[in-house]
Amino acid sequence: MQNRKLKIGIVGGTGYTGVELLRLLAIHPNAELAVITSRGEAGQPVADMFPSLRGYIDLLFSDPAQVDLGNCDVVFFATPNGIAMQQTRALLDKGVRLIDLAADFRIKDVAVWEKWYGMSHACPDLISGAVYGLPELNREQIRTARLVANPGCYPTAVQLGFMPLLEAGIVDEAHLIADAKSGVSGAGRKAEVHSLFAEAGDNFKAYGVSGHRHLPEISQGLGAMANKPVGLTFVPHLTPLIRGIHATLYARLTKQVDLQALFETRYASERFVDVLPKCTHPETRSVRGSNQCRIAVHQPQGGDTVVVLSVIDNLVKGAAGQAVQNMNIMFDLPENAGLEVVPLLP
Amino acid sequence: MQNRKLKIGIVGGTGYTGVELLRLLAIHPNAELAVITSRGEAGQPVADMFPSLRGYIDLLFSDPAQVDLGNCDVVFFATPNGIAMQQTRALLDKGVRLIDLAADFRIKDVAVWEKWYGMSHACPDLISGAVYGLPELNREQIRTARLVANPGCYPTAVQLGFMPLLEAGIVDEAHLIADAKSGVSGAGRKAEVHSLFAEAGDNFKAYGVSGHRHLPEISQGLGAMANKPVGLTFVPHLTPLIRGIHATLYARLTKQVDLQALFETRYASERFVDVLPKCTHPETRSVRGSNQCRIAVHQPQGGDTVVVLSVIDNLVKGAAGQAVQNMNIMFDLPENAGLEVVPLLP
Amino acid sequence: MQNRKLKIGIVGGTGYTGVELLRLLAIHPNAELAVITSRGEAGQPVADMFPSLRGYIDLLFSDPAQVDLGNCDVVFFATPNGIAMQQTRALLDKGVRLIDLAADFRIKDVAVWEKWYGMSHACPDLISGAVYGLPELNREQIRTARLVANPGCYPTAVQLGFMPLLEAGIVDEAHLIADAKSGVSGAGRKAEVHSLFAEAGDNFKAYGVSGHRHLPEISQGLGAMANKPVGLTFVPHLTPLIRGIHATLYARLTKQVDLQALFETRYASERFVDVLPKCTHPETRSVRGSNQCRIAVHQPQGGDTVVVLSVIDNLVKGAAGQAVQNMNIMFDLPENAGLEVVPLLP
Amino acid sequence: MQNRKLKIGIVGGTGYTGVELLRLLAIHPNAELAVITSRGEAGQPVADMFPSLRGYIDLLFSDPAQVDLGNCDVVFFATPNGIAMQQTRALLDKGVRLIDLAADFRIKDVAVWEKWYGMSHACPDLISGAVYGLPELNREQIRTARLVANPGCYPTAVQLGFMPLLEAGIVDEAHLIADAKSGVSGAGRKAEVHSLFAEAGDNFKAYGVSGHRHLPEISQGLGAMANKPVGLTFVPHLTPLIRGIHATLYARLTKQVDLQALFETRYASERFVDVLPKCTHPETRSVRGSNQCRIAVHQPQGGDTVVVLSVIDNLVKGAAGQAVQNMNIMFDLPENAGLEVVPLLP
Repeated sequence: MQNRKLKIGIVGGTGYTGVELLRLLAIHPNAELAVITSRGEAGQPVADMFPSLRGYIDLLFSDPAQVDLGNCDVVFFATPNGIAMQQTRALLDKGVRLIDLAADFRIKDVAVWEKWYGMSHACPDLISGAVYGLPELNREQIRTARLVANPGCYPTAVQLGFMPLLEAGIVDEAHLIADAKSGVSGAGRKAEVHSLFAEAGDNFKAYGVSGHRHLPEISQGLGAMANKPVGLTFVPHLTPLIRGIHATLYARLTKQVDLQALFETRYASERFVDVLPKCTHPETRSVRGSNQCRIAVHQPQGGDTVVVLSVIDNLVKGAAGQAVQNMNIMFDLPENAGLEVVPLLP
Repeated sequence: MQNRKLKIGIVGGTGYTGVELLRLLAIHPNAELAVITSRGEAGQPVADMFPSLRGYIDLLFSDPAQVDLGNCDVVFFATPNGIAMQQTRALLDKGVRLIDLAADFRIKDVAVWEKWYGMSHACPDLISGAVYGLPELNREQIRTARLVANPGCYPTAVQLGFMPLLEAGIVDEAHLIADAKSGVSGAGRKAEVHSLFAEAGDNFKAYGVSGHRHLPEISQGLGAMANKPVGLTFVPHLTPLIRGIHATLYARLTKQVDLQALFETRYASERFVDVLPKCTHPETRSVRGSNQCRIAVHQPQGGDTVVVLSVIDNLVKGAAGQAVQNMNIMFDLPENAGLEVVPLLP
Repeated sequence: MQNRKLKIGIVGGTGYTGVELLRLLAIHPNAELAVITSRGEAGQPVADMFPSLRGYIDLLFSDPAQVDLGNCDVVFFATPNGIAMQQTRALLDKGVRLIDLAADFRIKDVAVWEKWYGMSHACPDLISGAVYGLPELNREQIRTARLVANPGCYPTAVQLGFMPLLEAGIVDEAHLIADAKSGVSGAGRKAEVHSLFAEAGDNFKAYGVSGHRHLPEISQGLGAMANKPVGLTFVPHLTPLIRGIHATLYARLTKQVDLQALFETRYASERFVDVLPKCTHPETRSVRGSNQCRIAVHQPQGGDTVVVLSVIDNLVKGAAGQAVQNMNIMFDLPENAGLEVVPLLP
Repeated sequence: MQNRKLKIGIVGGTGYTGVELLRLLAIHPNAELAVITSRGEAGQPVADMFPSLRGYIDLLFSDPAQVDLGNCDVVFFATPNGIAMQQTRALLDKGVRLIDLAADFRIKDVAVWEKWYGMSHACPDLISGAVYGLPELNREQIRTARLVANPGCYPTAVQLGFMPLLEAGIVDEAHLIADAKSGVSGAGRKAEVHSLFAEAGDNFKAYGVSGHRHLPEISQGLGAMANKPVGLTFVPHLTPLIRGIHATLYARLTKQVDLQALFETRYASERFVDVLPKCTHPETRSVRGSNQCRIAVHQPQGGDTVVVLSVIDNLVKGAAGQAVQNMNIMFDLPENAGLEVVPLLP
C-alpha cells in the first residue's frame, strides 16, 4: 500500500480547513490530489486563491455538480455542516471512504444533533456506522471505518486533556469545567463582521456561554471515557490569534494519584500527544502548523483541583491534520506520513 | 476643593502605569503635575520618551535623589514592588498622601507578603493603616486614607466579579475558580524576552499556575467579602492584546437566586462597574482606555455552576485609572473627574 | 455661540467613522446628538451595537426614511460613497449645513469623479460650492461653507506631508512618490474576506497599485498647492494595525533649503499638525485615538531626495476627528473643542 | 554526496535565526546536527528553550569554549555581528566550510564595514575570499566557496527586486528608492524595549532613515548588477508582523520594455523566486515559513516610474533558509533539499 498513491478528492476547498488539507497533502508521499471542488470558484486555479500553494498545487477548482468522485480512494468534506450528509450514501455505495471535517456524523443521538444544528439529518441510519475520528480513543475502529467523523477543534483539545482523568475515574465527572480559547481562524473563512481584523484584533471575549455546538460533542466523548454521563461547563473564548486553541480544564479530584505519571503513561505511545514536564505551560505557538497536541497537568497548591492545559493548532490537530492522520490509519500508512511538519516558531 | 488644583508627584514615570497616569492627569481638571521622577531618564523631557504626550506634558523627568516631594498633596508610586515602602514614612510625616500602584501595602499579613514577594518589608507597622483601594469595597475608608494600596489588575477584575456572589453567600466559597487572561502590557515596560512581539504575538499560554503573586491578594479580598477564608484556583494566561483583562469566574451555587438582579442591585450606584444585560458577553475592547469594568453573569443550561465574565483595561481600572479614582475620593472630588474617557473602539 | 449646543444628525452610524463620530461627540461640550440613522438597525439602541458607548449615548438608531433632519444645525454623512449626494440638495435647502465623510464632493472634475467611483453624480452643480475640508489648507472657506467634503484618510496624511514642499516650490512636482500604509479599519466595518483577522493579521501587502480612488483626490490637492499639475505614484499598503496611517513620501529636491525650518514655520500655528524634531520618526500609536498629525522630514545622506514621514489616526484626523474640526470651524467654536483626547499609548 | 549526511555545527543557537536553522535542518535529508553552542545556555536541552522542537532535536547546547567544531563539514554562525570573524581563520584552517548569517563578511570595503558596524575587523584579509551568498546572483562562486557571507534580510528582498532592472540597464540607477517593511522578528530575540509586544504591536513606524547598516550592503550589490555605483534611498519600517519583509521599490524607467517578460525570463529557472502574474500583489503570508521570494512588477498609469513588490520571510529566504540553500549548493545537493516547506496560510 505504501508505494502507491491514494487518489484523493476534496469537497469544498476554499475554506481554511480546505487550504490546510492542501498544504499537508501537497507534500504527502502517498497522496495524489485528484479533484477539489468549489461551487463558487469552479474553473479557477487553486493557487490563484491561495498563492502560498503556487508551485505545489496545479489543480483548478471543479464544479461539484460536474465531477465524479467515485474514482477516489478517499474523499474529504471540508464543507459547512449539512453538506456531507447529502452525498455520503452515494459515495459509500461506490466504495469511496469518507472523512467529514464538519459535524454531520459526530453526534450519535440524532435528536440531539438536529436540535443543536437546526436541521433534519439527511441519513440518520448512517450515523451509527460512522467512527468518531479521535485516533487516541478510537484507533482500531478507524482502521476499518468507511465513514469517519473528524472531531471538532475544541472537542479535540478538551477530550485529549480530560481523557486520562476520566478513564482513571479519579475526578468528579459531574462538574467538569472547560475554559477554552480559540484563534479567529476557528470561525472559518467567512465574511462576517465579528471576525474582521478591526473587530477581533486587540480584543478578547467569551461567546456562546449559554450553549455552543461543541458542548454535546464533547459531553458525548467524555461520557464514553467515564462510562457514565458527565456534567460539563464549557466556555469558549475568542482570542486574537490566527491559529491555536488553548483549553484550560478544571476538575475536582476524588482520589490522589501521580498525575504526571498518569498522563505520561496514557500517551506514551501516541505520536501526536506530547505530555510536557511538570510545572510547565504549553504555548499555542509550540504547535503552530503541526499536528501535535501538547499537554501539561497541574495541581495548584496541592489542593483538590486538577488543572490541565492542552494546546493544539485548530486547523491541524483540530481539523485537517487529524483528518490526514485518520486517512493514514484507514489506509495502513505510517500514522505520521505527511505530518512531520516542524512547528513554526516564532 | 474642586476649584483648586492638587499638586501631584509621580515617582517612577517611565513604565506603562506611569505614562497612563500622565495621560489621565494631563487633562484632569483638578490636577497640576508638579514633579515626575526617573532615575534613568532624569533631565529628559517626558514627551521625548512618550511622544503621545507632546503638547500635553512639558515636564522633564527629575532625579529622585534631588527632588523634594514634600510639597505635593499626593504622590503616586508607579514603581516596581519594594520601592514605595522605602519612602512612605518620610512622605507621610510631611503630610503627603500616598497612592502606591505597586504591591507594597496590599497584603495585610506581612509574612505572607514577604513570602510571595521575596523581600523583607521596610515598614511593616504601616501596613495596617494602609487602605486597600478598591472603591466599590472600601470607599469610606479611602476618603480619609493617608496611604492607599492600589489593587493589582487581576485582583480588580476578579474581585469585582465575585463580590456580589460572596457578599450574598450563595456559592461554595471553598472552590472558586478564576481563569484570567491578560494583555501583554500587564508585564510592564521591561525589556524581557517573553514579552517581545515575536514571542507573545500570535501566541497564547497560561503561566504561574503553581502560584502567582496575585493569588494571596485576591484570596484576602474574597475572604473579606465572604467573611471567611476562601479556596481559590487562579490561572492567569497571557493573550496577544496590548491592553485588557478578561476574567472568567466559576463557582458552585448553593442557593438559587436571580443572579442578574443580584449583580444589578449591587452595582446600581457604581459609576465604574457596568452590569451588562442577560446573555451577553463583555469584550475587553469595550473598556479600552477607560476606567470601566463590565460584567455579565451566566448560569449555563440552568445548572449549578455560575459563570461571571468581567473585563477591565488593566492599565486603567486595573492600575492608573483606579489610582485617579482613589485620588478623587481622597480629595472629595467628583469620583469621575478626569475619568470620562470614552473607550476606544475599534 | 459657544454656550448653546449644536443639534447634530448623523446619517449612517453603524460603520467605523460613525462610531468614531459618536465617541468624539459624546463628550463634545457644544454638541447635542439629535438623531442617528441606520437602515438596518432602526429601533436598536446604539449602545447595544457599540457597548463602548454604554452610559454615553442613549439614542436609538432611526429609520432614515422616517426621520426629519431639517431641524439639525449640521448633519454628518458617515455613509458609503454615493449616498450623501442623494440628500444634499434637500438638506441644504432647509438651511442645514453638511459634512460628508465619504467622497461625493471631494473631486471638482465630475468626469474624473464618475470614472473613479463608477456612478453618475446626482448633483454635479453642487460640487463647485463644496469646500474641501482640509483646515490647514482651506480654513477660511470652511468657516462659511454650507457643504464640506471631508478628506479621505490617505489624502490627509499625504497632503499634509507634501504641503510645505509644494507651496515652497522646491521639489520636482512631476515625480512625487507616496508609499502609504493603512490599518485595517480603513477598509470599514464591512463583512469582506480580505479584512478578516485570519487574512489581514500577521500579513502585509500592497494593493491597488495600478490605481486607487484616493489618487485623483490627492493629485487634485497637490496640484492646488503646487499651482500646476503634479505627477504622483501612490502605492497603498495594508498593515496589521487596527488604526493608523503612515505615509512615507519621496520627492527630488530642486533647491536646497532648511527643511526642518520650512516645516516648522508652515505648521507653527496649526493645533493638529505637530512637526517632530530632526532625526526622529513618528509612530502611528503616538496619535492613536487623537486628531493629531505628526510629521518628520529627512534628507538621507544629504542627498537630493527628501523623505517625509507623516502619521495620522485614519479614523480621527483621517475621518471623524477632522469632520468635528471642520464643524468647530464652521460654527465658530474653538477648533479643538471636543478634540483634546490624549493619544492612547501603549 | 547525496547519500551521506553532512556533519553540521551551529554557533549561537538561541536567536531566531538559530531556531530557524534547527527547524529546517531537523528534517533535512542530508543533515546531521552535530553540535550547537550557546554561551548562556550550555547544558540545557535545546528543546527546553524551543518546545516546538520537542521530538525533533535532542541535542543540548554546548559551551562554545569547550567544543571542537573542527570535525564539522559546515558551520553556521547565527551569532551577533563581530563573532564569526573571531573564529573564521581557525575553522577554515581545519577545512571546515563556513556560512555566516551575520554581517562580518558581507561588505567588501573594510573601511565601509568598520564605519557602519563600529568595530575593527578581525581578519580583513579573508573578506575578499568570502562569497556573498545570494544564489540568484552568485551561484557558481558559492559552489566552491569556503566562506559564505549570507545576505541580510532587507538586502535579499531589495536586491532580488531590483536585479532584472539593473542588469537590463533600463532605469536611472542614481535615484533608486527602497521602501521596506519588516516584521519584528527581524530585530532578533533580544530583550529590548522597542521590540516588546506592547510597543511594536498595533504600531507602525519608520526607523534609521538617516542611515541603516543594510544600506551599504544593498548599494554594493546593486552596484555590481548595474556595473556602476548606484544612488539609493533606503527607508526601513517596523510593522506588527512576526515574520515577513515587504519591499516596495521605485525607479525611473529610462527605456520602455516588457517588464513582466523581463522579470519572468530572469527568474525562469530560479526555484525560490516566483514572479507573479501582472496586476497582482504578493502578500508576506504567502511565503510564511518558506524560502520563497515572490515578486510583482507594476508600471502605474503607464508612467515612467516602475514599482516592484518583493516579499520574503525574513527568517527563511532572509536568513536561515538562504543559508541552507547555500549549503545545498556548496555540497552539491539538490538546491531545494530540506526546503520544500509549504508556506503556512493562514
